[in-house]
Amino acid sequence: MNRFIDINCDMGESYGAYTLGCDSDLMPLITSANIACGFHAGDPVVMYNTVQLAKKCNVAIGAHPGFPDLNGFGRRNMNLSYTEIFSSVLYQIGALTACCNAAGVKLNHVKPHGALYNMAAKDIKIASAIADAIKVVDNSLVFVGQANSAMITAAANCKLQYANEVFADRAYNADSSLVSRTLSGAVIHDTDIIASRIINLATTGKIRTIDGSEISLIQSTDLQTAALSVCVHGDNPDALPALIALRKALAKNAIGVRGISSSTTAR
Amino acid sequence: MNRFIDINCDMGESYGAYTLGCDSDLMPLITSANIACGFHAGDPVVMYNTVQLAKKCNVAIGAHPGFPDLNGFGRRNMNLSYTEIFSSVLYQIGALTACCNAAGVKLNHVKPHGALYNMAAKDIKIASAIADAIKVVDNSLVFVGQANSAMITAAANCKLQYANEVFADRAYNADSSLVSRTLSGAVIHDTDIIASRIINLATTGKIRTIDGSEISLIQSTDLQTAALSVCVHGDNPDALPALIALRKALAKNAIGVRGISSSTTAR
Amino acid sequence: MNRFIDINCDMGESYGAYTLGCDSDLMPLITSANIACGFHAGDPVVMYNTVQLAKKCNVAIGAHPGFPDLNGFGRRNMNLSYTEIFSSVLYQIGALTACCNAAGVKLNHVKPHGALYNMAAKDIKIASAIADAIKVVDNSLVFVGQANSAMITAAANCKLQYANEVFADRAYNADSSLVSRTLSGAVIHDTDIIASRIINLATTGKIRTIDGSEISLIQSTDLQTAALSVCVHGDNPDALPALIALRKALAKNAIGVRGISSSTTAR
Amino acid sequence: MNRFIDINCDMGESYGAYTLGCDSDLMPLITSANIACGFHAGDPVVMYNTVQLAKKCNVAIGAHPGFPDLNGFGRRNMNLSYTEIFSSVLYQIGALTACCNAAGVKLNHVKPHGALYNMAAKDIKIASAIADAIKVVDNSLVFVGQANSAMITAAANCKLQYANEVFADRAYNADSSLVSRTLSGAVIHDTDIIASRIINLATTGKIRTIDGSEISLIQSTDLQTAALSVCVHGDNPDALPALIALRKALAKNAIGVRGISSSTTAR
Repeated sequence: MNRFIDINCDMGESYGAYTLGCDSDLMPLITSANIACGFHAGDPVVMYNTVQLAKKCNVAIGAHPGFPDLNGFGRRNMNLSYTEIFSSVLYQIGALTACCNAAGVKLNHVKPHGALYNMAAKDIKIASAIADAIKVVDNSLVFVGQANSAMITAAANCKLQYANEVFADRAYNADSSLVSRTLSGAVIHDTDIIASRIINLATTGKIRTIDGSEISLIQSTDLQTAALSVCVHGDNPDALPALIALRKALAKNAIGVRGISSSTTAR
Repeated sequence: MNRFIDINCDMGESYGAYTLGCDSDLMPLITSANIACGFHAGDPVVMYNTVQLAKKCNVAIGAHPGFPDLNGFGRRNMNLSYTEIFSSVLYQIGALTACCNAAGVKLNHVKPHGALYNMAAKDIKIASAIADAIKVVDNSLVFVGQANSAMITAAANCKLQYANEVFADRAYNADSSLVSRTLSGAVIHDTDIIASRIINLATTGKIRTIDGSEISLIQSTDLQTAALSVCVHGDNPDALPALIALRKALAKNAIGVRGISSSTTAR
Repeated sequence: MNRFIDINCDMGESYGAYTLGCDSDLMPLITSANIACGFHAGDPVVMYNTVQLAKKCNVAIGAHPGFPDLNGFGRRNMNLSYTEIFSSVLYQIGALTACCNAAGVKLNHVKPHGALYNMAAKDIKIASAIADAIKVVDNSLVFVGQANSAMITAAANCKLQYANEVFADRAYNADSSLVSRTLSGAVIHDTDIIASRIINLATTGKIRTIDGSEISLIQSTDLQTAALSVCVHGDNPDALPALIALRKALAKNAIGVRGISSSTTAR
Repeated sequence: MNRFIDINCDMGESYGAYTLGCDSDLMPLITSANIACGFHAGDPVVMYNTVQLAKKCNVAIGAHPGFPDLNGFGRRNMNLSYTEIFSSVLYQIGALTACCNAAGVKLNHVKPHGALYNMAAKDIKIASAIADAIKVVDNSLVFVGQANSAMITAAANCKLQYANEVFADRAYNADSSLVSRTLSGAVIHDTDIIASRIINLATTGKIRTIDGSEISLIQSTDLQTAALSVCVHGDNPDALPALIALRKALAKNAIGVRGISSSTTAR
């Protein structure tokens, strides 16, 4: 049984004069921040400031690399080669690492963003390009990827530590993939239901799918090593109350929260 | 007297389908490579490949950060704040560091590019933003800046190691600045004259200016600590023969070449 | 005496996932929209949608070209050559013209943005590069530039129609330039004072400067030809009430509002 | 029988300090130039200069819009929505039109670039987004698309004029698609074979595929209206001799060359 889970949120998605998200409200309530690295969002000033904010809130810092597509916010599929993905992820991790050095904190994990994440969940070649980049840059970094996806396989293949990410407010298909947002029921709004699903995941590794069956999202060995990370979306107005409700429910069920780290994750 | 000098050249300035420079020809003949970091030139794939090439040739690797202006190749003055310059330099150093990590080599120095370099030579605030970024990221990095400019002052102010850069093929004004390329006599083409100027600099720290007087470009203490780096421009067809001629002349005068490094530079 | 003035506002400054300004609230209250063209803000989808919104509100459409600096929102000085400015302005005007064609409306004017505007106000070479670009693309376009600045001179020099732009909420120096935002008193918040200054400008062409003297911002011939355009800044929360107050005050003083156009502007 | 064909070539693919192609050598030998519009290649200065070069050589000018992916040279598939493609093509056509206005010439045609071209050849939705953009901007423009592809269908659907493009140096599959460059035999190097294939196409509309059969690439009605455009790739060293050989062979067979235009194309 999993007595601790991680709550992660995408952060640092502003850019120049453009502000996005409510980082300063949410940061104190999460345990891991995935910080955009300037390709799909973020810029050097935003990155540096977001690292400082995370440090102040004692939140574990992760790189959030994406496709080089600011206009599409990294949400449009792009057909990059293995070498292009490997080098781009390397580049983005390095850029954020420098911001961490400057702030005197350590980079903790890497979670791909948007279309890169979704493509890597299904395509082992893309997932491996990301895993290989993480490994050569710093093999103590944790690869945060969708539970039961090609990202977890790629991380395990190269003996990289990983965390199984689950989406608190999203419905799942029987094959562990997320129900498309275009379908009814894809997003769950009831905070009680969200909390009970997360507690069930943390204790059993299982989740009820949209067709009513229950599947294993997290392997039992991973459960013991605490490698469960719940994603909270910061870009909607309900994020704050949902997060507060989730933390209350977790506390009531004696489940603690803490950042994913090399000492608590699966490998 | 300076028995060793460094020969540096800007490298990795290609971008996607665009090829620039003749890196593979020049790399074996230089001792330090300043590698573009994706803002004014270079991209993740080019950076990674250029680091590998430098490693193969045993050439010391430096970051070559520039303004975020690919279309102007970083040669157009831009009015950035201290914070923007600090963060941008941090970002670019980090990105190249990750490429170095991946190749198993260490980043050695940082030399600003183009308009950023020229502005920093005259403006202590800009020079300090760069020096501060270098310092927080890794205070063993060497700041390569124009001899007798604000960059050297900024490096010394924050106890950062530095190297005095001189331009082999450029005429100097009496105030240590370069004669503008728009004026006649600004660029020296005679390889014998170029070589004898460099040898004079390496042994005395002095250079004859365009008005005939002789000035001290390098302080005598710096001469002893070997902190002299000669820049060779790789983007013209004469670079290769000029480089070969320079190395011959240096050898004849018993002046060795080696990469700038923390053990050989002034602080 | 000027019975009609134009009220212009910068519009279409969103970009991809980033939203900026409150275009749909302000559009019905202005007479001219300056639409960003993708270099400092805006993207093809935003531009097309903003043209459609302006059309729906019967607002005259202008191109709002800026420096190629999305991260700096076009507010950072950049040192571009005459040819680079000329071609960049040409490009941006063309891009917006296509959006106008698609919507079945005509492009009406061109107003430079941010740092390009400020630099062109003082530098006749930059102002002329803009004027020349406007002229070759469509010499019926109106050049909207700061009253009593190099932009007006450049427009007049090449027989281009122009409008004198004044800033409703900004204090002026005795030389017709704006008081720097870094100084106290630079921005005027009292809507009554703003309205009375605009009415005075519309009727006499004069404005009281920050040192108490009164200067002529608009030449009397221009006053008769109605070439006065008041800029309202849409990026602050007070824009809407200030705009409503201004329109009330204008109505009370029998001053109408209408878009600048080739039939109503100076040449 | 087709007594005239068009020879088109991609032009203006340089960017800032980066030079690509040999435009000034090839321009005098072609009849239509597809000029890059700043998204995958080209910049405002390059575009303006390339339009001037085409004008000097009496070559018909076309816009060559691509994906917003300079680093990938527009050759990487990107998943854009109908609206994004429509608006992006609109934008790029407009930008080049302004350069044409400035040079006093008319824009003649539009040919998509790289991955956008390849995706539009197979996907009627993408092809229609391009056709719709062309139509609303200027319905006298000619849509140049791959013969027997979805682009021709989309152009015909909205009564837009079109030209059937064929690739002189590429092998074809039985379904009218190009043999992938990764397969042996995909690129034809023998200039005699290239010339005879083009002559056969111009006179019969047919081409021999890689499996030995002969297929109709061009409908007979299109042949009569002369809507055949042969693409020559300018980015390889053999382009110039291949082009000279092709023109000789065409002349020997009494086939003239002239730019595609609204008076000579199918609708």
